Amino acid sequence: MSIYLDNAATSFPKPEAVYRAVDNFLRNIGASSGRGAYRKALQADKIAFQTRKSLARLFNIQDASRIVFTANVTESLNLAMQGILKNGDHVVTTGMEHNAVWRCLKQLEKEKAITITAVPCSPEGYLEVEKLAAAIRPNTALVVLLHASNVTGTVMPIEQVGELTRQKNIPLLVDAAQTAGVYPIDVAAMRIDLLAFTGHKGLLGPTGTGGLYINEKYYINPLKFGGTGGESLRDDQPDNLPDRFEAGTPNLAGIAGLGAGVDYILNESVEKIRQYEMELTGYALDKFRSLTGVTMYGPLNASKQVGVISFNLPGLKPEQVAYLLDTKYDIMVRAGLHCAPLAHRTTGTIDRGTVRVGIGVFNTARDVDDLVLALKEIMRFNSSIS
Amino acid sequence: MSIYLDNAATSFPKPEAVYRAVDNFLRNIGASSGRGAYRKALQADKIAFQTRKSLARLFNIQDASRIVFTANVTESLNLAMQGILKNGDHVVTTGMEHNAVWRCLKQLEKEKAITITAVPCSPEGYLEVEKLAAAIRPNTALVVLLHASNVTGTVMPIEQVGELTRQKNIPLLVDAAQTAGVYPIDVAAMRIDLLAFTGHKGLLGPTGTGGLYINEKYYINPLKFGGTGGESLRDDQPDNLPDRFEAGTPNLAGIAGLGAGVDYILNESVEKIRQYEMELTGYALDKFRSLTGVTMYGPLNASKQVGVISFNLPGLKPEQVAYLLDTKYDIMVRAGLHCAPLAHRTTGTIDRGTVRVGIGVFNTARDVDDLVLALKEIMRFNSSIS
Repeated sequence: MSIYLDNAATSFPKPEAVYRAVDNFLRNIGASSGRGAYRKALQADKIAFQTRKSLARLFNIQDASRIVFTANVTESLNLAMQGILKNGDHVVTTGMEHNAVWRCLKQLEKEKAITITAVPCSPEGYLEVEKLAAAIRPNTALVVLLHASNVTGTVMPIEQVGELTRQKNIPLLVDAAQTAGVYPIDVAAMRIDLLAFTGHKGLLGPTGTGGLYINEKYYINPLKFGGTGGESLRDDQPDNLPDRFEAGTPNLAGIAGLGAGVDYILNESVEKIRQYEMELTGYALDKFRSLTGVTMYGPLNASKQVGVISFNLPGLKPEQVAYLLDTKYDIMVRAGLHCAPLAHRTTGTIDRGTVRVGIGVFNTARDVDDLVLALKEIMRFNSSIS
Repeated sequence: MSIYLDNAATSFPKPEAVYRAVDNFLRNIGASSGRGAYRKALQADKIAFQTRKSLARLFNIQDASRIVFTANVTESLNLAMQGILKNGDHVVTTGMEHNAVWRCLKQLEKEKAITITAVPCSPEGYLEVEKLAAAIRPNTALVVLLHASNVTGTVMPIEQVGELTRQKNIPLLVDAAQTAGVYPIDVAAMRIDLLAFTGHKGLLGPTGTGGLYINEKYYINPLKFGGTGGESLRDDQPDNLPDRFEAGTPNLAGIAGLGAGVDYILNESVEKIRQYEMELTGYALDKFRSLTGVTMYGPLNASKQVGVISFNLPGLKPEQVAYLLDTKYDIMVRAGLHCAPLAHRTTGTIDRGTVRVGIGVFNTARDVDDLVLALKEIMRFNSSIS
């Protein structure tokens, strides 16, 4: 039996209802939404509408039409940053960001001469809100940070950051790639203005789905221009959401699956999922501590991190560990920099990378036991030959 | 039995292999491509690779890595136009374009002060290449046009345009939304530098898929910036294709389905599909001519158009016709402007729009018979009450 522990990249498996929703859409509905007026097209419209409603419920968003669909969280982040930032703006971010934030900002530095302050974090990935407050300048036009690190799992103090940005009247963009669906998010309580999420991780949907919530206070530029099915006579994108940001035929089959994934979460409750993953992460952290010589990164405290654990074994490259786990034990984990060099500079693992375990809602204590057993064997074997 | 005749919007049904490929990916593979190194992740890599290879074979592209995946043709066109055009450039296009081309150009007019010449076409949608040649200026940096109109089906003389642009050393971008998979495309013979296509129409794949072929002569800017799974240490997007343009987790489930769709086409051969659709379109045009009072638009010559037929009935709005066809006869067609106001200005239908029939490879003569019978009844009923 293979064990999948790369849920931080993509969740697997998905609930049965997700597979069925995608297949049902493809086989029985098929039509484009917002374009035809025949009944099947209206069914497609309804699927998009229902998925938006479910996401709005999950994130406590008042107006579901403020959620626009994208292909993944990278597109959501690009839409938000490219759409809101203007020439000469200043941006505050953190030293834990993924390349989806960092590379887009570096591009805007070249293209629009923006300036960037990346607030340093502790080696565990912790952010001090005072340091972030101190980085704010008169021309700061955006604060962007991830909700939880994809390298260390560290959860960021979004609520305090939100209080600060609301006071200063600066839009707050949160990259929820690692939290949406597995950690409670309330855009109102957390004062999040722009929430970027992906569909295929914690939300349990298929690849090719994601979204951006845009607070009605902000009128931003689209990333793509084209047909929206309505107001066709206009030369420019319509103003109304979600149409403004959804040029071209949307991924309806994916959105149908995403809706089923979010409904699964709403049915279970995100609090229960968080509790389960937190307990399993705590259990894994305890088990890892029993491994002599292992180096672990991040909070090492399940209440302060999501189900992401990064580690290294003595005398083995992360890629070797991942390779042995896969080929000898049929256990899937990820090795390398995880597209987040900034975070690896912060944790001190930039030269080597880490092995990353991504725990998901369908993992069990047994999976963790098998992983730790395998790691023990790998270490024993490695020390016996070296 | 419902009859689907909106294949110009999205093809339906798909081959059984497409449904199975998507479901198999979601249920049994699930992993991200280009990110993990475990065997399932490599299987995902292989699926993306195979789909690229099949597309390369279909379009006669030498190097499959020059095909990058997008969410739909609108994204492909935006990537091409935003990526290649610079401040003050001049662009030549036609009076038949879809908003996916037109709105993006109008945005670049504002953003980068580009100038646009839309070469007028005949009311049937025909383009005279001499007129296009005459529109070229010393600062013309791009010629962009559709391969076939989504309103009239008119096929554009891409080969002659390609000869011209190759001579003048101007990149040629072709919007193949209505032709990819149903009309032979050979980027070498047609001298197409940038080919934008969507996955969910003639290519028989699922929604959320599309792509752009980029000739190696052109180095263009990405639309989105972020992680690509490789070269993570760089602050900017890597130069190598396809990675440069595929930031974020790709729609692997969709790409698996697209691969199955393209393989179905390769197996049947696009020439055979074209022949079948051409004959069926000719049959439909003949049948339509028997409808007294109907107004038809476009070439009305199956050898000069794809399976798209636009028409109007006397005394009825297009929306009324589509509504009656759907609710009384279970026949699905599209009504309105089809996101292409330019084309409707050319055909003289801007105030009213048209009813559009989109013939697909799974339609039969029987479908056409039933449609024409229904239209006859609708006209009879309408004239009896008016």
